[in-house]
Amino acid sequence: MSTNIETEVSNTEQRLRSLLTNAAQPQEGSLKSSIETIDYRDIRQVFHVKQPLGDDSPVTGAPLSFASPSEFRKAVRRNEFTSSTNGICPGRMQCNLIVLEEEYAFDFLLFCQKNPRACPLVEVCDVGAFTATVAEGSDLRTDIPKYCIYQNGKLLTKTHDATPYWPPKAVAFLIGCSFSYDGALLKAGIPLRSVEQKKNVPMYKTNVPCHPAGRFGGHVVVSMKPIKAVDVAKEVLITSKYALAHGAPLCVGCPESIGIQNLNNPDWGESVDILPDEVPVFHYCGVTPQQVLMESGVPFFISHSPGHMLVTDLASDHAVV
Amino acid sequence: MSTNIETEVSNTEQRLRSLLTNAAQPQEGSLKSSIETIDYRDIRQVFHVKQPLGDDSPVTGAPLSFASPSEFRKAVRRNEFTSSTNGICPGRMQCNLIVLEEEYAFDFLLFCQKNPRACPLVEVCDVGAFTATVAEGSDLRTDIPKYCIYQNGKLLTKTHDATPYWPPKAVAFLIGCSFSYDGALLKAGIPLRSVEQKKNVPMYKTNVPCHPAGRFGGHVVVSMKPIKAVDVAKEVLITSKYALAHGAPLCVGCPESIGIQNLNNPDWGESVDILPDEVPVFHYCGVTPQQVLMESGVPFFISHSPGHMLVTDLASDHAVV
Repeated sequence: MSTNIETEVSNTEQRLRSLLTNAAQPQEGSLKSSIETIDYRDIRQVFHVKQPLGDDSPVTGAPLSFASPSEFRKAVRRNEFTSSTNGICPGRMQCNLIVLEEEYAFDFLLFCQKNPRACPLVEVCDVGAFTATVAEGSDLRTDIPKYCIYQNGKLLTKTHDATPYWPPKAVAFLIGCSFSYDGALLKAGIPLRSVEQKKNVPMYKTNVPCHPAGRFGGHVVVSMKPIKAVDVAKEVLITSKYALAHGAPLCVGCPESIGIQNLNNPDWGESVDILPDEVPVFHYCGVTPQQVLMESGVPFFISHSPGHMLVTDLASDHAVV
Repeated sequence: MSTNIETEVSNTEQRLRSLLTNAAQPQEGSLKSSIETIDYRDIRQVFHVKQPLGDDSPVTGAPLSFASPSEFRKAVRRNEFTSSTNGICPGRMQCNLIVLEEEYAFDFLLFCQKNPRACPLVEVCDVGAFTATVAEGSDLRTDIPKYCIYQNGKLLTKTHDATPYWPPKAVAFLIGCSFSYDGALLKAGIPLRSVEQKKNVPMYKTNVPCHPAGRFGGHVVVSMKPIKAVDVAKEVLITSKYALAHGAPLCVGCPESIGIQNLNNPDWGESVDILPDEVPVFHYCGVTPQQVLMESGVPFFISHSPGHMLVTDLASDHAVV
């Protein structure tokens, strides 16, 4: 693993050096175009790649922009982007990934259908398929910035390339993600603290049980946003329209009432500041199935790493009612 | 004033005595019917009337039922009901009242139009009229359980009958009231603490300025409901549909952020308990115009007493979008 990172760092450092060299030695008449060819994003990626491969790899800087979700996925496939996708490709639907061996697929599909708030299904791929129709030309084994590989209910490893672990008869589930409405919130003047603070969103296990299905049962995981008390109603009204992105909050304020004892100690992601005029707003999170599959002791599954999502071609307000 | 109350107490005590006498001395074959003729509501009213005439006259017992809003208004006109209308005639729109002399009417109408969240207009009566079309056969001078008479920005007196104070060329404004969606909240499993605790709702001045208009400016007044943190989203989604009843909350949690220092010390109504799993939810309140007219030092106006509303014939979901 560390060798991979070193290789990436080395490659991207070389690219940065070459870009800076081009910028520093302009030929007459070509200064402007040389500067324009310095891709701001490429420079950022060097720092991305220097982040340790952990739960909490932060969002670097302001939201990056890519020509298209497809371009973004290609960058991810080339390991040029390995961070949280919070704020990436605003206006596009992002998805959680769960990959299960065929024999567990029915129970999991049933689980999703019984828990649509926590697990809104965007797409279920055919057995053995690893291209999603909602992400044209995608390879689900490589197009997510970071994966978690689980064995016997425990995290085995994290990786930027799930290909070696992908079971031949796997079923891939794409589940909506609350990042999808972030653009709409921003547009409505509701900023995202995690983006402001360059952090992955904080996520917490709750004591709220899911509806069990087949072999699967466990507890809801939530993500948290601090929202100004006078903006809560607007936040609820906007998010409620995004059923495929978990919809309206599960809980507003009172973290203890859903079993969260310490907001500064999230189970995934990083804690963010909450100002005196803000309340913590908790939304269903697509990490819920990871928690449930762990709690249920499934022998093997693959997921995205929390906060590191598949960016699809769908508009984030796809299916907004 | 005290003479009025004494007369009422005396009258209603006589009625109670007579009802109890009828019940205690049944004639053969008429026991059942005699007991049935004891109107539970009549007995309640005795205790209503014994309440001192103050800001905080509590809601007595469970919501009372009346044959129709019209019957309720007639009972009010006869001084048989003098309490808060919280929980009365569920499913009917309730209204705040403001009565101004003609020369202030245009400025106030402009004020309402600039502050539709705080002052949603249900009806503006013609100059000199005291019957509302939204309350058939009503007499706005007598059909509200309790009135406030203001002079030079200060409360002059409270009364059950505003007739002697009603200016000949007055304009009456009926403004929506958040009691109107209480039925929808109850139906959705969201109980009302003020009804549970037999209290008038707590109302607070805020530091949120209204949009000024003409001679009028001042601060928003809010009412407060404790709502379970896991029910806040549902509360917002339901109330947001009731634009004529102030719509979605102005603020959820963080009372200080809107200038409320002590929830236990409301400016009108009574404080209610907030449980550990609940957040205080603040809605725009129709007492706002009273506050604004006081702040603006209007020489004279009449209003309902906070919590003591006009019950209209309109369905509470009239104008729900």
